Amino acid sequence: MLLQKEIDLRDPVRLGEELHRFAAELYPICRSITGDGLRQTLAAIGNRIPLRLVEVPSGTHVLDWTVPKEWNVRDAYVADSSGKRVVDFQKCNLHLLGYSVPIRARMPLSELKSHLFTVQEHPDWIPYRTSYYKESWGFCLSQSQMEELRDGEYQVLVDSTLVDGHLTYGECYLPGRSADEVLISCHICHPSLANDNLSGLSVATFLAQLLPGRDLRYSYRLVFLPGTIGAIAWLAQNRENIGRIRHGLVLTCLGDAGGFHYKKSRRGNTEIDRAAAHVLAHSGDSAGILEFSPYGYDERQYCSPGFNLPVGCLMRSVWGSFPEYHTSADNLDFIHPRQLAGSLQVCAAIMDVLENNRRYCNSAPYGEPQLGRRDLYSSVGGNTIGIEINARLWVLNLSDGQHSLLDIAERSGIPFLVISEAADQLMENGLLNEVQGENGIGPA
Amino acid sequence: MLLQKEIDLRDPVRLGEELHRFAAELYPICRSITGDGLRQTLAAIGNRIPLRLVEVPSGTHVLDWTVPKEWNVRDAYVADSSGKRVVDFQKCNLHLLGYSVPIRARMPLSELKSHLFTVQEHPDWIPYRTSYYKESWGFCLSQSQMEELRDGEYQVLVDSTLVDGHLTYGECYLPGRSADEVLISCHICHPSLANDNLSGLSVATFLAQLLPGRDLRYSYRLVFLPGTIGAIAWLAQNRENIGRIRHGLVLTCLGDAGGFHYKKSRRGNTEIDRAAAHVLAHSGDSAGILEFSPYGYDERQYCSPGFNLPVGCLMRSVWGSFPEYHTSADNLDFIHPRQLAGSLQVCAAIMDVLENNRRYCNSAPYGEPQLGRRDLYSSVGGNTIGIEINARLWVLNLSDGQHSLLDIAERSGIPFLVISEAADQLMENGLLNEVQGENGIGPA
Amino acid sequence: MLLQKEIDLRDPVRLGEELHRFAAELYPICRSITGDGLRQTLAAIGNRIPLRLVEVPSGTHVLDWTVPKEWNVRDAYVADSSGKRVVDFQKCNLHLLGYSVPIRARMPLSELKSHLFTVQEHPDWIPYRTSYYKESWGFCLSQSQMEELRDGEYQVLVDSTLVDGHLTYGECYLPGRSADEVLISCHICHPSLANDNLSGLSVATFLAQLLPGRDLRYSYRLVFLPGTIGAIAWLAQNRENIGRIRHGLVLTCLGDAGGFHYKKSRRGNTEIDRAAAHVLAHSGDSAGILEFSPYGYDERQYCSPGFNLPVGCLMRSVWGSFPEYHTSADNLDFIHPRQLAGSLQVCAAIMDVLENNRRYCNSAPYGEPQLGRRDLYSSVGGNTIGIEINARLWVLNLSDGQHSLLDIAERSGIPFLVISEAADQLMENGLLNEVQGENGIGPA
Repeated sequence: MLLQKEIDLRDPVRLGEELHRFAAELYPICRSITGDGLRQTLAAIGNRIPLRLVEVPSGTHVLDWTVPKEWNVRDAYVADSSGKRVVDFQKCNLHLLGYSVPIRARMPLSELKSHLFTVQEHPDWIPYRTSYYKESWGFCLSQSQMEELRDGEYQVLVDSTLVDGHLTYGECYLPGRSADEVLISCHICHPSLANDNLSGLSVATFLAQLLPGRDLRYSYRLVFLPGTIGAIAWLAQNRENIGRIRHGLVLTCLGDAGGFHYKKSRRGNTEIDRAAAHVLAHSGDSAGILEFSPYGYDERQYCSPGFNLPVGCLMRSVWGSFPEYHTSADNLDFIHPRQLAGSLQVCAAIMDVLENNRRYCNSAPYGEPQLGRRDLYSSVGGNTIGIEINARLWVLNLSDGQHSLLDIAERSGIPFLVISEAADQLMENGLLNEVQGENGIGPA
Repeated sequence: MLLQKEIDLRDPVRLGEELHRFAAELYPICRSITGDGLRQTLAAIGNRIPLRLVEVPSGTHVLDWTVPKEWNVRDAYVADSSGKRVVDFQKCNLHLLGYSVPIRARMPLSELKSHLFTVQEHPDWIPYRTSYYKESWGFCLSQSQMEELRDGEYQVLVDSTLVDGHLTYGECYLPGRSADEVLISCHICHPSLANDNLSGLSVATFLAQLLPGRDLRYSYRLVFLPGTIGAIAWLAQNRENIGRIRHGLVLTCLGDAGGFHYKKSRRGNTEIDRAAAHVLAHSGDSAGILEFSPYGYDERQYCSPGFNLPVGCLMRSVWGSFPEYHTSADNLDFIHPRQLAGSLQVCAAIMDVLENNRRYCNSAPYGEPQLGRRDLYSSVGGNTIGIEINARLWVLNLSDGQHSLLDIAERSGIPFLVISEAADQLMENGLLNEVQGENGIGPA
Repeated sequence: MLLQKEIDLRDPVRLGEELHRFAAELYPICRSITGDGLRQTLAAIGNRIPLRLVEVPSGTHVLDWTVPKEWNVRDAYVADSSGKRVVDFQKCNLHLLGYSVPIRARMPLSELKSHLFTVQEHPDWIPYRTSYYKESWGFCLSQSQMEELRDGEYQVLVDSTLVDGHLTYGECYLPGRSADEVLISCHICHPSLANDNLSGLSVATFLAQLLPGRDLRYSYRLVFLPGTIGAIAWLAQNRENIGRIRHGLVLTCLGDAGGFHYKKSRRGNTEIDRAAAHVLAHSGDSAGILEFSPYGYDERQYCSPGFNLPVGCLMRSVWGSFPEYHTSADNLDFIHPRQLAGSLQVCAAIMDVLENNRRYCNSAPYGEPQLGRRDLYSSVGGNTIGIEINARLWVLNLSDGQHSLLDIAERSGIPFLVISEAADQLMENGLLNEVQGENGIGPA
């Protein structure tokens, strides 16, 4: 059964709530590119799917980068002269500039200000800022909080550790008939931010739960890792296996109320690019297809010119295009059960295309085969035909060994699902022969 | 002289009326995919053009199909209990479901109803329905008629024969300088329906009348055959000659008030596709170019993947897109003399492109040749030039052996006719050399 | 320093005025395709840039043409019976049909009229007309003047000489590191017409003044020649060097108030075509890109099929599209200092693209190189990046040896200037290696 049909059988409201609940469970954790927050997050994912954890020591050279020290925080605040905490990491982990070095100091507001970050356009929102590779400290606060700060002396505490340790990532491998792989990648380094990217890791985790026990054409590798440095570390440690990746998706920002966006891989016309565009075009939602650009999420690394992998990025609203992006307003209210379930549905439909995108030869290619005698055509003539018969005609007409089912779906404008079912019926009637794929992916 | 110029010399009103009169002559005949109605129709065509009739016996295997039994009708009706004919084949041959098997029975209305067909949206129209390959019987009637039927017993008579016989088609072959062929195909299996397809066969017949006696580059083969099974039978019996077909057109629905539509061949960019699109773009009418799809008329068979012939379909309104399609409202009032004449004109213009689409080399390719001294340019400079001079410049500039005149017409936006005449003038002045075509089609 | 940056340092108002002043200096001269007016014009250009003058004798065979006799005018007029000059070459050189043969005659108005040319739509404008290759004489006058002519006898004088002499053109060659050339071509045969083409030759002259003393990648050849016959003569005399021309621009109509238009070369996708389109898209002005057509300026000759050079044409308003074209209304008021300066700026930007359009290989192509540690990235994360960082990411991502900087500018939508500067910074940081060009154009 197709993945999307299996999801259709489930209660979408309940499914969406389960996805949202998982995001909510992870929301409070203080994540960064290293540290115990990452480990807690991976442990929660590991409760649901088989996950191998990898610890990469600080100082390890990975491609052009070096794994940084591990960062952990016990407490952090700015207190006024009366000792009252006016900015408090305990209330919201976004308040602390990511990777802030330890400090305990007193200083006047004027000096403190160079360490404070706000979003002026939205006076109640706290921005998300980091300083991974330049040792620094700072606090993020709302513009309203900032304006309430009176002149005077403040006490600053960052009770963090930044010491040799490890960068942690998780990998879930689900073997299929072929060693060729589909890569699903999520960044898990953002602290209390819901759309970016608890939505992505929640959808990816649920997708991984659907796959085991199925007769899979491809093997699936889902990686959950800190953005940029995590993807770079993973690539560095898996260079010999990179060639197996046939298709890949970065999943992020999948819970907000916006329509879908798919950002193409650097190659721009790979099977994943076409599968995603096809599924989105038939998703019923408004959807945008974006050309590749080298800024964004970890497709930056997968699509660097040396690797040039067929990896795109699936989102709803595009990073940077919504004001809540990288602020405290990207919270659990900003992501919706219904949207999360819809995103899982779209991911499943894309996987269905990859799993079933075969190439056939019409075994009766001279003229149309007589579908009527095989009960594949309407018996009364004179009326126009329905989409199922039309799909059969398309599959027969283009099955010359040159066109895949996705080619046929694209050219006909008929959803892949309907084309794929038409092919199944024609196969059963001996009207098609499957062509062995050029990439060693054998028949179903 | 170009075909379209020859037609221009004739009175378009009278020409249209002749085309319409021929359709009217054939309108009453009860045609189907076999039977005497086909033979009468072919006889009428044969009165105007040389036509070879072919009879294919029932039971003959043709590609994936079998030629069905021959069907003929003497009478058919539904009569009420008083003996009054309430549905009468004698009044309109559409009343009888095509290929109805013989029956003589009495039955209550409730039982009869499962054999009755109407068009609900248009209460006065009779639909056209058939059941060629599943033995059945039925009557087609208007929704108004249907609503007048009172409960009670009805007498049903179908006095038809469905026995071994023949399928009949006609072929008109007009030899040209080359054995390479242009195929023109019309279906002639529809009973009293005017646009679909008396219009098509009328235009095709008149086109065939224009060709003999001309110095033709191509040989022309016009086939008049029952839809689907006729085309399949013809293809089955002519497989060894199929390779000669260089260009082809299915002609249908050419009399209604709508603008032209050309449906491309499966290959999508063949010379006939480009010639038709070019002519339609310059026809003065609104015109639509449709991508190939495997549903439609006999291009379905010609463009099946095994044959994959360069055959498109020329229509005015597209089948299924007008409410009169396959109903009694597609009658002689639905087709217009003026539209029929315009369709013949467009067909002629397309043939003119095929006949004259040559490739040249500019014999003075370095700089512009001095047209002024050859009286091919205006002698007073400073003003802009007219379309004739512009056409000469285009032909000279692109005649590098790589561009055909159709290429030049497309790129310049100048009608093929003007480009072709410019080439003739440049040839006369020694400024062009003809390139021998890659397909063995020699010079004029 | 890039040319356009050098121009940016100058006062644009003053620069525009200088360009206009040069046009004004040349405006009164009676130019034609041969004669002393050409020599005076070339002498004025030669005062500003190194110019080699070439004299081609009348009767010389050049490609398909023959250099005509040389034409010079001392005086010309039409006088009424009282001796009053009613049309006077001394007042405006447009009054005389170009290449008018000598005549001294008396004739009635009725006979004179066949030698008179007007523009009916604009009663006060004098048209520009010529008769180079058919011996004739005539006068151009305003429709108002024409209507004032009373019946009676007129005295006609054309005191011209049309005798064996020379056709004159000028060539400015500015050597660069490579013998590969950029060709800039202007026609200089129009008498008192400002936009067509004193604007073009003025911009070309100023462009040539900017080039010497720079470290040029290409050699530059600027030709100033009579339209058509001059370009043909130049091509005929330089056939062995034509292969060195890598890029070329015809400059004309660069002073009017309209937006830019670039007409592509016959090949349509050469580097000059893409460079011009890119610069115009980022010029801030509205701009149109025109497909090649074989009518226009001397790109007609450069793009004839035998030469097929990569030469486009840069204009503001397109010839023939503005009513002032080839009339006395194309005067010094019709061209504007600001527009002339803007045109020079655009030409400079196009040359900057040609000079700096290199191809690189990213030396750290696996993943992104860590820009932060090289001070090429912002140190605080979480915010979106600026255009400079984005340009670096684009250059790194597409520098796989396959993409030039212009490719990258086109695909990213970022101005070439910014892309080029990003490449310079990445080179300085050892992140790029230059690829030797396929055309022998070495590194900077």
